[in-house]
Amino acid sequence: MSFDGFCVIAGSNVLLVQKFGGTSVGSIERIKGVAQRVAASVKDGNNIVVVVSAMSGETNRLLELCGHFTEDNRDREVDAIVSTGEEVSSALLALALKDIGVSAKSYRAHQVKILTDDKHGQARIKSVETQKLLDAIQNDQVAVVTGFQGVDSENNVTTLGRGGSDTTAVALAAGLSADACEIYTDVQGVFTTDPNVVPSARKIDRISYEEMLDLSSLGAKVLQLRSVEFGMKYNVPIHVRSSFESAPGTWVVKADKKMESVKVSGVTMAKNEARVTVSGLPEQNDTMSKIFGSLTDEGIVVDMILKTESSGGLIDVTFTVPRQDMERSRLRLAKEFGGTSSFKISSNDKIAKVSVVGLGMRSHYGVANTMFSILSKEGIKVDFVTTSEINISVVIDEKYGELALRSLHDGFGLHENPDFE
Amino acid sequence: MSFDGFCVIAGSNVLLVQKFGGTSVGSIERIKGVAQRVAASVKDGNNIVVVVSAMSGETNRLLELCGHFTEDNRDREVDAIVSTGEEVSSALLALALKDIGVSAKSYRAHQVKILTDDKHGQARIKSVETQKLLDAIQNDQVAVVTGFQGVDSENNVTTLGRGGSDTTAVALAAGLSADACEIYTDVQGVFTTDPNVVPSARKIDRISYEEMLDLSSLGAKVLQLRSVEFGMKYNVPIHVRSSFESAPGTWVVKADKKMESVKVSGVTMAKNEARVTVSGLPEQNDTMSKIFGSLTDEGIVVDMILKTESSGGLIDVTFTVPRQDMERSRLRLAKEFGGTSSFKISSNDKIAKVSVVGLGMRSHYGVANTMFSILSKEGIKVDFVTTSEINISVVIDEKYGELALRSLHDGFGLHENPDFE
Repeated sequence: MSFDGFCVIAGSNVLLVQKFGGTSVGSIERIKGVAQRVAASVKDGNNIVVVVSAMSGETNRLLELCGHFTEDNRDREVDAIVSTGEEVSSALLALALKDIGVSAKSYRAHQVKILTDDKHGQARIKSVETQKLLDAIQNDQVAVVTGFQGVDSENNVTTLGRGGSDTTAVALAAGLSADACEIYTDVQGVFTTDPNVVPSARKIDRISYEEMLDLSSLGAKVLQLRSVEFGMKYNVPIHVRSSFESAPGTWVVKADKKMESVKVSGVTMAKNEARVTVSGLPEQNDTMSKIFGSLTDEGIVVDMILKTESSGGLIDVTFTVPRQDMERSRLRLAKEFGGTSSFKISSNDKIAKVSVVGLGMRSHYGVANTMFSILSKEGIKVDFVTTSEINISVVIDEKYGELALRSLHDGFGLHENPDFE
Repeated sequence: MSFDGFCVIAGSNVLLVQKFGGTSVGSIERIKGVAQRVAASVKDGNNIVVVVSAMSGETNRLLELCGHFTEDNRDREVDAIVSTGEEVSSALLALALKDIGVSAKSYRAHQVKILTDDKHGQARIKSVETQKLLDAIQNDQVAVVTGFQGVDSENNVTTLGRGGSDTTAVALAAGLSADACEIYTDVQGVFTTDPNVVPSARKIDRISYEEMLDLSSLGAKVLQLRSVEFGMKYNVPIHVRSSFESAPGTWVVKADKKMESVKVSGVTMAKNEARVTVSGLPEQNDTMSKIFGSLTDEGIVVDMILKTESSGGLIDVTFTVPRQDMERSRLRLAKEFGGTSSFKISSNDKIAKVSVVGLGMRSHYGVANTMFSILSKEGIKVDFVTTSEINISVVIDEKYGELALRSLHDGFGLHENPDFE
């Protein structure tokens, strides 16, 4: 298989954004290792902008300090505190680079500047100003930017949520029109499924933005969802690779014909959801909006939805919510529909959602059938199903989750390198 | 003794800037204590702006991280790292205040904004923008500002040197035209001398800016020198007091008649200097400028200077420099005057500088005489002397330092409350 399209990613006048996660900068020794790695890229003639996370453990230490006063991670002050983790790691890396003769400067979000909305703890990047970074590049200087953080229009410090440094890196790569964004992490790349559960899981060499979006949103934890959205929107090639090895990892790129020949690229599992079923509701125009409107009022995000008709003009609605919101959902709906005599509610938080993702589903029929037959062969009952253009998700009993993941991975032949037809 | 002039400092519509040092915010429990103290001031009807240092030990922890790469505390990146200490403590205090029902927000130097020059590690405040703080006051909100840090005109983070939070506090008090600046610390106030050396040392109730300036520059470590300069320039009453007790501390204020009746207010000792004597130099117009010009070139700051004529048209020059610069001074001067056959150089780093400070010296003669006779009674030889309008400093053998401090403290009756004539 050829990666001709990416041979440009080594040589002179190439601009790379390199992101190093918390484990990669987890100690002074590792920071020195990262500095060596960056220095080697510079020596190869590349222009480098670096984005770093906090040293591993640091964000948790800071959150523990906050925990003496609040559990609310959406508090402005919590953002002010946890953002210091990246401020320390970025400046330490700049020192480490200077120590080995590489010109470097650290930049915080307010200096770059990375503008976000004002949703503390889960802010979204609205824009990046790249002039300071371009100046640094012009001066053959490595800019080391704090990941995970931004400032809102009032200059309050915000954070982007766990994994937010990925998004910082891809957003800067987009803003700078970088040739690629390299995400250095503690795994070798994106795998066909979780290697901890399925030992035969295989590293994927190339995957489309669309598939990566689905894998990220369906349980894979390699990249923050929003970073993939940025990559797709601005067509930034993202290279997910190991901090500790030099082998190439996974390229997340624009879909091409070859990719579409692969029916299933990956299998994921999520165990953080719960199922809620409301039944005995009248089939009226506003029933659905009453249900989901009231959950929205509570700030509860609903994932899968299934509506079925039962006898006597009544309907049943089943949906999934984050596990920690299950009880709140029940209470709110009981309040909403308590007056309806036929109303019943049930729920189950011992579920797993297993999904298969593949660009090839668009053009290949029968993926759902294959999925059901693989599961049924193992005696796994499917509770309910949702599908999109390039993924199929099933809800099953939590205890069969790992079995389902293994059998789907084998059944779709994911342990083998794909045949590009 | 009446403090009538300061009764205004309690009541409604009074604006206080309160600064809490590292020991005062050294643990979660102590931060809670500070929050209670601030809340009490708010309840009394005062408007409060708070300035905090980093939690004690934190700045050293961060400097140790930097120490893996550089010992240069004037590095831009070192400032970026150590400044995070105050960012954490200020936001934690804001959380602690909100936790007990007091509206509060933390502000960093770039948010306020506190503009400095670009001398990293020892930056000087050039201006403060107070609009955000005035808005906070208007909204009955306590603003908690990071001490010790600023930003330069390029938005680089700078720090103000040890004790810099004092200066932040007084500068903000000046900018806000606050009624007073309260410096909460781990001692009860400003003492007539170091209580660790002289147990009879007495807390001073009121002292002039001028005297405080001299005490600070001559070895007392209670207030950063620059904070006193700001206080004097903008006439901000500074109240140095204990974080752990409610008793009043020391007011640093504009000089008045009563203060001038006190000959000596305090005695200090500094053991961080060394003496250098160059002799056998020709008495020429440019000899002095050659000596001190070459030291300036080396970045060495000279403190006391004494010039004497010896026989044959030659001169001897004695001066003091910081101890760590003694060898460098010798080397540089040997290079400069090595060609002069009569040139000799000697030095001594086992010296102590003991100073008496008092506004009353201006109008009272004989303070120097009293000083010499007290020292001679103890058999302490004075190496050399410098005087200013309100202080007299002597250099003596280091081993007599403590004895000199005790005997001068007793001899000038500093253990007794002053008689305002």
